[in-house]
Amino acid sequence: MRVLSGIQPSGHLHIGNFFGMMRSMIQWQAKSELFCFIVNLHALTTVNDGPLLALNTLEAATDFLALGLDPDKSHFWVQGDVSEHAELTWILHNFTSMGLLERSHSYKDKISRGLVPNHGLFAYPVLMAADILLYQANLVPVGQDQKQHLEIARDIAGTFNHVFGPTFTLPEPGIDENLATIPGLDGQKMSKSYNNAINIFIPKDELKKRVMAIVTDARAVDEPKDPDNCNLFAISKLFLSDAAVAELRERYLKPGLKYGEVKKELVEIIWNFFAPYRQAREDLAKRPDFIRDVMREGAQKASRVAQETMEVVRVKVGLKY
Amino acid sequence: MRVLSGIQPSGHLHIGNFFGMMRSMIQWQAKSELFCFIVNLHALTTVNDGPLLALNTLEAATDFLALGLDPDKSHFWVQGDVSEHAELTWILHNFTSMGLLERSHSYKDKISRGLVPNHGLFAYPVLMAADILLYQANLVPVGQDQKQHLEIARDIAGTFNHVFGPTFTLPEPGIDENLATIPGLDGQKMSKSYNNAINIFIPKDELKKRVMAIVTDARAVDEPKDPDNCNLFAISKLFLSDAAVAELRERYLKPGLKYGEVKKELVEIIWNFFAPYRQAREDLAKRPDFIRDVMREGAQKASRVAQETMEVVRVKVGLKY
Repeated sequence: MRVLSGIQPSGHLHIGNFFGMMRSMIQWQAKSELFCFIVNLHALTTVNDGPLLALNTLEAATDFLALGLDPDKSHFWVQGDVSEHAELTWILHNFTSMGLLERSHSYKDKISRGLVPNHGLFAYPVLMAADILLYQANLVPVGQDQKQHLEIARDIAGTFNHVFGPTFTLPEPGIDENLATIPGLDGQKMSKSYNNAINIFIPKDELKKRVMAIVTDARAVDEPKDPDNCNLFAISKLFLSDAAVAELRERYLKPGLKYGEVKKELVEIIWNFFAPYRQAREDLAKRPDFIRDVMREGAQKASRVAQETMEVVRVKVGLKY
Repeated sequence: MRVLSGIQPSGHLHIGNFFGMMRSMIQWQAKSELFCFIVNLHALTTVNDGPLLALNTLEAATDFLALGLDPDKSHFWVQGDVSEHAELTWILHNFTSMGLLERSHSYKDKISRGLVPNHGLFAYPVLMAADILLYQANLVPVGQDQKQHLEIARDIAGTFNHVFGPTFTLPEPGIDENLATIPGLDGQKMSKSYNNAINIFIPKDELKKRVMAIVTDARAVDEPKDPDNCNLFAISKLFLSDAAVAELRERYLKPGLKYGEVKKELVEIIWNFFAPYRQAREDLAKRPDFIRDVMREGAQKASRVAQETMEVVRVKVGLKY
């Protein structure tokens, strides 16, 4: 089975990314053919800052390699390095009705938030369809907000298959339940855009500040606490063994627990949990050219798969003369 | 100076093409850097028939080579063979406002003629902009109907240059006066879509039928004729020396001229005029693999120029990390 997932090059990873997308990606890597790529072509729809995009792309590659994405066990590349993404996009434009794109929630939403409607935003779902169909992906883990885009990809694939016979695999959405349940500092879903995230690779004093900012209720020290409605408990749980979770729960239910103490413990727990990854990241960050080589090889590996699809498509639409 | 021109792979060339676009292309080839390509990616916006598009692409290549386009003196390639066209198109989408595309006459015209609006038709001007800007073309000979598309290309280039500093040459339109003045069988502009064209590479009996179908007025044999308002005269003129034109004019002004005789003469004149081209075409048509090789080499040559632009663009927008 082929599982495909795109990574936004949008800055630093937080623990919500880790326990959601990242952990599930490592699992897919073990049990399926994983196709994972950094979507710098998509990023162009909203980013006009070249040096920033280049930096974020390299950082995203470094992060994912440090966290265990293994280029030998998966396909891992940067989207813009594989020309087939753009080539298939142009072909698919011609099998995409205007109405399909006009109905895109994500486009309408961006317009309503005051973004100037450039044509890249409008065409975004076609590029995403090309990303998926190029690799004949069976499963695409997506958040609720991307579900319609996946339906558009299925729709475009269906139209093409109808005209030229079976060509593209229809991808299934894999709604990742984990993603929604990881809370941020304020209890909302952890997200960069809510500014409630704890980033993974930050200095310890910054980590401390973030953890101390986790919102808790106003119960006094001598009152029992409610672990099931405590944001601090929910975040701590992510890092603890079942036994350690049970122990912390006991402490919550008895009077005397100080949130400040739990937070101090959590700082150490998070710091130690990510220690090996931090070390790997520091080592990698010293070798940007090595990372570029890894990504270039990844692009070649991905391109070989993409070319298999393109060869068939080019014959069918008549580009091979 | 760089001159750029796209060729539609839409079937057989007629004498209007020859005396308009083709002859002017051969002239550009001698006095400028000519970039000339068969626009099979554009054709996808309206053609769903793969084998037909593939055939028409190969035929267009054969026609142009037979008529004197010289791959050593120009850049001559098939658009879909150079991935940079699609790659730059995606980038430019993000510098194209929706309004700019919504105002395209050509799109609105196609919709009003009842074509189902696919997104390829809508995005067409962005691909055309990429075609032009990729090669830093100075001059693009266009018909009146394509003038707005060239303005869109200038607009997109201007937006990009404004954001990232001077990057793209702003192309100038070269309106080709010849194109409009070559009449078809019925006196309207010669065009495949008016079904009033005389194709270049047709058997002699078919040529005879087409020439005999040239519309003339109803003046009797013993009346003098009006060469300046005669379609047959206008077409004949294309093939005659100044002296021969003057001689034919004399015959028109005296009573006794039979249109049928002028037509018979014209058949021979056209047949002999294209004889060397016909021979060249027959020789080439026997060697489709040779033509494919020529076009593949042409694509490599074009791609080297395209890559120079793309290298700069990729750094500026941040795709090079």
